[in-house]
Amino acid sequence: MITSSSNPRIKQLALWQAKAKERRAAGIFLVEGFKMFLEAPEAQIKEVYLSGEAAEKAGEYPEVREKLKRTGYETVAPGIFGKISDTLTPQGILCVMMRPEYRLEELLAIPRPVFMVLENLQDPGNLGTIVRTGEGAGITGILMSEGTVDIYNAKTIRATMGSVYRVPFVYVEDLCGTIRLLRERGIRTYAAHLAGEKSYADFSYREGTAFLIGNEGKGLSAELAGSADQYLKIPMEGRVESLNAAISAALLMYEAYRQRQ
Amino acid sequence: MITSSSNPRIKQLALWQAKAKERRAAGIFLVEGFKMFLEAPEAQIKEVYLSGEAAEKAGEYPEVREKLKRTGYETVAPGIFGKISDTLTPQGILCVMMRPEYRLEELLAIPRPVFMVLENLQDPGNLGTIVRTGEGAGITGILMSEGTVDIYNAKTIRATMGSVYRVPFVYVEDLCGTIRLLRERGIRTYAAHLAGEKSYADFSYREGTAFLIGNEGKGLSAELAGSADQYLKIPMEGRVESLNAAISAALLMYEAYRQRQ
Repeated sequence: MITSSSNPRIKQLALWQAKAKERRAAGIFLVEGFKMFLEAPEAQIKEVYLSGEAAEKAGEYPEVREKLKRTGYETVAPGIFGKISDTLTPQGILCVMMRPEYRLEELLAIPRPVFMVLENLQDPGNLGTIVRTGEGAGITGILMSEGTVDIYNAKTIRATMGSVYRVPFVYVEDLCGTIRLLRERGIRTYAAHLAGEKSYADFSYREGTAFLIGNEGKGLSAELAGSADQYLKIPMEGRVESLNAAISAALLMYEAYRQRQ
Repeated sequence: MITSSSNPRIKQLALWQAKAKERRAAGIFLVEGFKMFLEAPEAQIKEVYLSGEAAEKAGEYPEVREKLKRTGYETVAPGIFGKISDTLTPQGILCVMMRPEYRLEELLAIPRPVFMVLENLQDPGNLGTIVRTGEGAGITGILMSEGTVDIYNAKTIRATMGSVYRVPFVYVEDLCGTIRLLRERGIRTYAAHLAGEKSYADFSYREGTAFLIGNEGKGLSAELAGSADQYLKIPMEGRVESLNAAISAALLMYEAYRQRQ
């Protein structure tokens, strides 16, 4: 059992919890809670930490107990777990996970894909919700600008409800370049845009499709919007100027899903 | 100009900011920011407070300046505005608004309505997003259990982006009783439920429609779900067990909207 907050592993975990850059450099991400532990692909689990209380509770759940036997774990003394947790009321279980490596070329090779292309999304909850809804709608993956919020932000991970393990994603340096790659492969790109005249429900998404969603405040950059094949609009009544980014994304993804069923 | 934090109006505003019960008792709600001021129905504005800095900035925007002339306002000295603001980085404008009174009977009298019926929704952001999306989808109104989060919570108001002024809503004591009232008027009720077998996209919502959405963690109570005319499902791929409440609501509202266009 780790009993000191000056233990080097506790210090390392606290640093990872605090700094996205350190997590990235180490090629890991952190997840908390029993649900996230249970859904975690075993091959990616590097380390598991349990508070004493959580270790006792875990013993009562066969599924948790068996998985812990296979992964192994380290117990952390009361009072120490708070140092490595991101939440105010931690469940007492934290995993260090290896980052999966998704390759753009492999995603692009999948036939008739549906991609979400996100430009500089800033809200962790929005990104997490798009990942969760995206798994539900069966999308192929998410392509994001490097200015988009970290998918391994603790809030994003929580909002994904486990989908972060299963939805492929790639951060790309040059989204406009990526749009050109999509076009070369016959994948049509649709920008949700105020200048769109035709409703999103009036296009066919049965072939390869990519939806472009912009930053919460600024929308899509003129350059990226200009590189899209089509503008589309989401019709709105009243005085609503735009919908929340995760809501717009959900309507588009589920329209594509509906058409493909 | 108010220069002291012990000024009785500042104390009153701070109390209102802190306590939903006090706001309710006074029949008011608080909104912050220039957008919320500009969109506020003038007949409902009771008082406006500006920080000195915001008063200067306001002078540069004719639309704000003219509206302030009509409503009147009070300036608050630097350092005092923080006491009455709910945000870390206030824009320096706060309005005390009179609550509108929506009556259930009046809403029920509207022909071919679309209602959202929310049971014990807890997340302020979810409720605010449903209000915003609801205005976009042209819904008739929102009927909520008394256990649902306060629509005049500062986070909810922010998430509505102004739609809180325009979407009618009623908190009701007995949602099951409300469902009976809906049925008496020929309004069909649809519960988004794991037991649903038919997809939401396969029902017709051209006649009077009400969608039931449950609590984020627990879903709909058995009693309320049992009182619905139909269960519906939102199809999901992968290992997704449910969608975020605001996302589910958006898909249903926009499907009804699409069918009615």
